[in-house]
Amino acid sequence: MADWRISPTLALNDMVAQRQERGESIVHLGFGEVRLPAFEPLVDRLVAGASRNTYGPVAGSQAVRQAAAGYFTRRRIPTDAEQVVVGPGSKPLLLALNLVVPGDVIVPKPARNTYAPQAELAGKKVFRISIPARAGGVPDPAALQDTILAARALGRDPRIVILTLPDNPTGTVAPPELVREICALAEQEDLLIISDETYRDVLHDPRTPMLSPAEAAPRRTVVTTGLSKNLALGGWRIGVARFPDSLWGQRIRDGVISFASEVWSTLAGPMQQVAEYAFTEPQEVRQRLADSARLHGSVARALHRIMVDAGAVCRPPVGAFYVYPDFNPVREKLAARGVTDADTLSRHLVDEHGIVVLGGHLLGDDPTALRFKAATSMLYGDTVELQQQALAADDPAKLPHIREVLTRLSEAFTKLCG
Amino acid sequence: MADWRISPTLALNDMVAQRQERGESIVHLGFGEVRLPAFEPLVDRLVAGASRNTYGPVAGSQAVRQAAAGYFTRRRIPTDAEQVVVGPGSKPLLLALNLVVPGDVIVPKPARNTYAPQAELAGKKVFRISIPARAGGVPDPAALQDTILAARALGRDPRIVILTLPDNPTGTVAPPELVREICALAEQEDLLIISDETYRDVLHDPRTPMLSPAEAAPRRTVVTTGLSKNLALGGWRIGVARFPDSLWGQRIRDGVISFASEVWSTLAGPMQQVAEYAFTEPQEVRQRLADSARLHGSVARALHRIMVDAGAVCRPPVGAFYVYPDFNPVREKLAARGVTDADTLSRHLVDEHGIVVLGGHLLGDDPTALRFKAATSMLYGDTVELQQQALAADDPAKLPHIREVLTRLSEAFTKLCG
Repeated sequence: MADWRISPTLALNDMVAQRQERGESIVHLGFGEVRLPAFEPLVDRLVAGASRNTYGPVAGSQAVRQAAAGYFTRRRIPTDAEQVVVGPGSKPLLLALNLVVPGDVIVPKPARNTYAPQAELAGKKVFRISIPARAGGVPDPAALQDTILAARALGRDPRIVILTLPDNPTGTVAPPELVREICALAEQEDLLIISDETYRDVLHDPRTPMLSPAEAAPRRTVVTTGLSKNLALGGWRIGVARFPDSLWGQRIRDGVISFASEVWSTLAGPMQQVAEYAFTEPQEVRQRLADSARLHGSVARALHRIMVDAGAVCRPPVGAFYVYPDFNPVREKLAARGVTDADTLSRHLVDEHGIVVLGGHLLGDDPTALRFKAATSMLYGDTVELQQQALAADDPAKLPHIREVLTRLSEAFTKLCG
Repeated sequence: MADWRISPTLALNDMVAQRQERGESIVHLGFGEVRLPAFEPLVDRLVAGASRNTYGPVAGSQAVRQAAAGYFTRRRIPTDAEQVVVGPGSKPLLLALNLVVPGDVIVPKPARNTYAPQAELAGKKVFRISIPARAGGVPDPAALQDTILAARALGRDPRIVILTLPDNPTGTVAPPELVREICALAEQEDLLIISDETYRDVLHDPRTPMLSPAEAAPRRTVVTTGLSKNLALGGWRIGVARFPDSLWGQRIRDGVISFASEVWSTLAGPMQQVAEYAFTEPQEVRQRLADSARLHGSVARALHRIMVDAGAVCRPPVGAFYVYPDFNPVREKLAARGVTDADTLSRHLVDEHGIVVLGGHLLGDDPTALRFKAATSMLYGDTVELQQQALAADDPAKLPHIREVLTRLSEAFTKLCG
């Protein structure tokens, strides 16, 4: 039997649960779960959808696909319902893509920790390519070109590149000119682009320019998204894939539908009802998205300041709810505490300060680098009331319950690097 | 790109939808979807679970796993919560098992049309073994032994056998002595048994003896089940796997959890709430299960009579809502109508009589055999009111709206074989 590892995030959560059971006080920055209440109108749709207990179409009902098509079309990606497939989260859709589309996979380094295990499940080799200094979620173009040539020389066949906009784990958005450069390379090298746009609605400033690869390379880009992050519905499992309007796109979509029919049958009917409503984006949903993005941005910027003040270099976050600091500038000070790499850094943080982060090595990054991913999404309050306050506040980072945890983080990181 | 076929059931549903759009009157016996309303207390639990919008444990909450453990324990399979994993239907759990456990796969011939494509997805070879005359869902023991030896001689490594009790597609239950014989063979040849017990609560007579392979071979049997069939929740996607209480069982379970963490994360929280309630089996759930089983049994027996009266041989159904007739006794009469195999038989039925069935060749059976699967589960009424009548009736097959469709079927099959 193959060696099936427990996913690193899962292992972290188990560790956190054990420490909390022992009475330890933990600040959990290691898990991108949004601890906010489910938005009430979404709950209403779940209830209204309860009578949908028959299977229905594998790809999702016409109505939910139409709603998702509208969602993409309003984002400068004209889409027909036929180009959409919904599923129980974006993960099974990503796995289906890995199984349907042949060839090896290129992912940014670091990247969301789902991409590599899924590609390996599908028997693919994974090429990890460093991200530019400007932003994460995309590989450095020169390194991408070099890697493709080197891989082919070794008899490999890289055919898929996965991009993340906005990025998990760096909280940045690749600038449009960089996206265009990558898309041109994908055209030239005949790569399929999978653009994971899960955090598209979590741009902290809606004016931040974002170009989807589906705009720059419409015939070769599959876009995935979902409602786990923007609407705090991780536990409801709703994801979407949008396929190119091309023969190639249709063939990939048909393959994904075929895989879906053998694996998850369809997205649960009540969840389709929720998704139909959410992707239609009535005013109250747009307001909720804006409130959430303001909250995530406020706390992520505060956490970024803490990292920089402590001595790290760190790209300023503009999307999602992550920062990805690099403590290389204080490497010598950390070495004196026995912290010499991503693993010892994350262990030290939890053992000495009760702070849980996800070491960069678990995201495919260089294990000797002093980098980690820190998520703010579980810092918004332990009760629904505090979470609602956080959503409503003009400057959430200034709320007492959030300031308290930020102060603890600030003191810990100052001490770490002092 | 590999040739990804649309699953046969899906293709059938598309065909039915197209014909109905053209105004044709279709009797759809080709799809095992239970057209009954969702049981109201289950809807209440879905609503109560709406606040569960965080991920929670990959395997499912302690409470839902405890409830499922009780369900199995009450069926003479003592189970601890640690042995249970819930997922979005039994299909993803079956795929995970295929990927986690090495070796080739043995399935009955015919079998539920999910097993073979999933095994092939996992890179396995599928060996199909004829079922005994007594019952389906299990391979004929002598043929099983022969096939294993022959496969090994060819350098293959069959290590998994999938059993279905009660059986889809034959509607029968393998008698306990046959289960014991297969389990002894599995012990001798070191096979993992996957026992698909989706229809366990759809035994038409609760006194029908059923021995789970998990009783006869506890260390090597994984049991799967779900709520799609017994509680008519196909559209809610709730499945369960129960692993052996052994080191081997724990390793397989850990592998499935690892796969789940990369693919579906967890069963949606509101669905976990539903499952927790259903598997606890309060009195009202037991009553609903009994009503459903009575309905399925009544109509399945009526359909069986129609097949036999028309000239087919057919195992009498005792579970699920399927019959699997063999029209070989009237082969010559059918040949005069151009019907010479499973494919032409099913085409003739839809073209001449508007009756949709699933040809045996689509379930791995011999394509030249005149066999098909016919499901009764969509015959219970076109409105919730009629469906409730069907659930409440002492002898549902005698209700006017069900008698009407049975009469149409009777006339069609009499004409077919006349």
